[in-house]
Amino acid sequence: MAINLHIPARHAIHPVSGIEIGTAEAGIRKANRRDLTLIKLTEGTAVAGVFTRNRFRAAPVQVCESHLAGTQGIRALIINTGNANAGTGEPGMLAAQTTCKALAAQLSIQPNQVLPFSTGVILEPLPVARIVAALPAVIADAQTDHWFEAAHSIMTTDTQPKIHSRQIELGGTLVTLTGVSKGAGMIRPNMATMLGFLATDAGLAPALLETAIRQIADQSFNRITVDGDTSTNDSFIIMASGRSGVHIESADDPRYPMLFEALTDAARDLAQKIVRDAEGATKFMTIQIEEAVNSEEALKVAYSIAHSPLVKTAFYASDPNLGRILCAIGYAGIDDLDVSRLQLWLGDVRVAVNGGRDPDYLEADGQRIMAEPEILIRVALARGTTSETVYTCDFSHEYVSINADYRS
Amino acid sequence: MAINLHIPARHAIHPVSGIEIGTAEAGIRKANRRDLTLIKLTEGTAVAGVFTRNRFRAAPVQVCESHLAGTQGIRALIINTGNANAGTGEPGMLAAQTTCKALAAQLSIQPNQVLPFSTGVILEPLPVARIVAALPAVIADAQTDHWFEAAHSIMTTDTQPKIHSRQIELGGTLVTLTGVSKGAGMIRPNMATMLGFLATDAGLAPALLETAIRQIADQSFNRITVDGDTSTNDSFIIMASGRSGVHIESADDPRYPMLFEALTDAARDLAQKIVRDAEGATKFMTIQIEEAVNSEEALKVAYSIAHSPLVKTAFYASDPNLGRILCAIGYAGIDDLDVSRLQLWLGDVRVAVNGGRDPDYLEADGQRIMAEPEILIRVALARGTTSETVYTCDFSHEYVSINADYRS
Repeated sequence: MAINLHIPARHAIHPVSGIEIGTAEAGIRKANRRDLTLIKLTEGTAVAGVFTRNRFRAAPVQVCESHLAGTQGIRALIINTGNANAGTGEPGMLAAQTTCKALAAQLSIQPNQVLPFSTGVILEPLPVARIVAALPAVIADAQTDHWFEAAHSIMTTDTQPKIHSRQIELGGTLVTLTGVSKGAGMIRPNMATMLGFLATDAGLAPALLETAIRQIADQSFNRITVDGDTSTNDSFIIMASGRSGVHIESADDPRYPMLFEALTDAARDLAQKIVRDAEGATKFMTIQIEEAVNSEEALKVAYSIAHSPLVKTAFYASDPNLGRILCAIGYAGIDDLDVSRLQLWLGDVRVAVNGGRDPDYLEADGQRIMAEPEILIRVALARGTTSETVYTCDFSHEYVSINADYRS
Repeated sequence: MAINLHIPARHAIHPVSGIEIGTAEAGIRKANRRDLTLIKLTEGTAVAGVFTRNRFRAAPVQVCESHLAGTQGIRALIINTGNANAGTGEPGMLAAQTTCKALAAQLSIQPNQVLPFSTGVILEPLPVARIVAALPAVIADAQTDHWFEAAHSIMTTDTQPKIHSRQIELGGTLVTLTGVSKGAGMIRPNMATMLGFLATDAGLAPALLETAIRQIADQSFNRITVDGDTSTNDSFIIMASGRSGVHIESADDPRYPMLFEALTDAARDLAQKIVRDAEGATKFMTIQIEEAVNSEEALKVAYSIAHSPLVKTAFYASDPNLGRILCAIGYAGIDDLDVSRLQLWLGDVRVAVNGGRDPDYLEADGQRIMAEPEILIRVALARGTTSETVYTCDFSHEYVSINADYRS
């Protein structure tokens, strides 16, 4: 069902020097599936993260933020599926800390050098003993070439693994970027229930990586939405091992723009893959708002369209019932919007102008574009010069089925 | 499919003296259905309205606002289904005005004494000639006892007519209140694609009615949501003919509180009926937020729950996957919310406390309540003393089917 989701062949996934990955079966929710993933980092790896702004931030998210704020370098990430460890109060915090402690003891590092991640059902106690029992297996499995396995072991309602891998030349040195993500529902990152892990063997000064990850998230994971439900567990992590020999200390380094661009491309691809595999999705929609006064109002309009169940079901039906888009623009909350000045395009076809339907618009043109699996919706607000782009999907029977059945 | 939607028997619907209703077939979108409704008002009837805040306000909404601002009394309402006359630009305004002029000429009143209403597809030209051609028939049909027919002729995707009728004694005089509403999708009134028309033979000073309708809307039509899509055409109108002999000039009149309460009850019932008949709905959910600092934050939390596709699909499945409610509370946008202090109840069962699951909560209790057709979700925020209540429904396969097929 995924829409144009490219899965690289196993041999096209480049290992990242200094970063090893193990997976194991912990039996957290279901038996016979790999539900535990370890990412082991070489000493000196710079790590930065952005996390959900949901007030019910899961226990592991709180632990991650605290450990990232510490001075000791992060040496391991431990990720479980099947249970989000969110809405679990103090026992949830203890469970996340117990996992860190047990892993740290076995890797001879400190507990605050471990970042824990959980994804799955909310409001249920984490079976932490099962995770601890599976730690020896996940450690024994750790290899640099296990990204493909990691992309599978972090999946929940995902139907496809999400992997991005590429190499670029930076000042004569070959640098690798490889990352994985997961997520298909409860997706409106602000951070989405998404997890994204992106690694490079380029080195980046921690302060620079900290700045970069926020800018990168705002062009990737923070620009996708499936259902508007900002999860309790969203996390996006960049790890820079430095093993390629490339070390970038400041944004003034001439190699930085190219690395930043490559990291952004990788993050955008990993984020878009979540939308391409969104629960029940049949269409991938890019919503581009132009001529806004500022980002905030552009995003208001974009998300108003992206979250409208009526817009999403019309796209599911491939029905150019485009008045629903105007309606969503109208209730986006821009009080002084002059609807007589805005323009709406579907792909290259102008649909609305002067507050009404374009006289040249033909329903047949709308229908042609609606039949495509990838659709561009473009709105020009005639108010300013700011643009923003958001990626979303349609709303299908399948979405309802998946989410009505998720726990069973 | 409607949930506990009471339709009064024809003989239990009280005519309102001074108010006549006609219906006719204009063939606006489909043949062989009554799609045109006239409400004729006796001279001196006080009329007030509240309308959508969508920036793409439909042409008829703009005309209504302008005519209500005038000094001449409103004498007729003309309502068509099948086409919303929204997103229609200047030609749409002309079409609405043409309808008013043609009706005014035939009733020997002025065009600005007519209020036009449209509901149906957006972004398509209104076939105004068909409406004008049907005016003689709709005028000839006008009778005081045609409320039942009006409740049917204003329906679009509604499966059931929505009528409220009652009589109360005010200072020894019998006063009647009768109203109709329509709407099933694109419902988040702020005003919902809803229309509501409530009539009484009590008399109310116009300024008092103007104040009252805003307070009444905020306790009824502005507290329901189906899909969060605030329509371009929402309108709620109260008409007070004064024919009962009761005339209320100020809020100090001892009879006013009882009339206000009766009007509010009537409006709330008409609004709730829209949710009970919402597209594909199988559950009626009351979301009550308590202990908020103010109305704004209570409503933020209420709508965040009410609009979450994940919450709505869980209710559809009768699955107490209640972590989804915590998640929606968490992303409602209250930055300083202390989740460790809030409490969540499903009916009379406390589900969450101290930031996690209530230790006494049993899944069986959650399941028992989820199986009911009417469910109360109650959240205490532990921040203040303000409460707000919002009414909504679940999200089903049927909703997707209806909205994927709506235009065909």
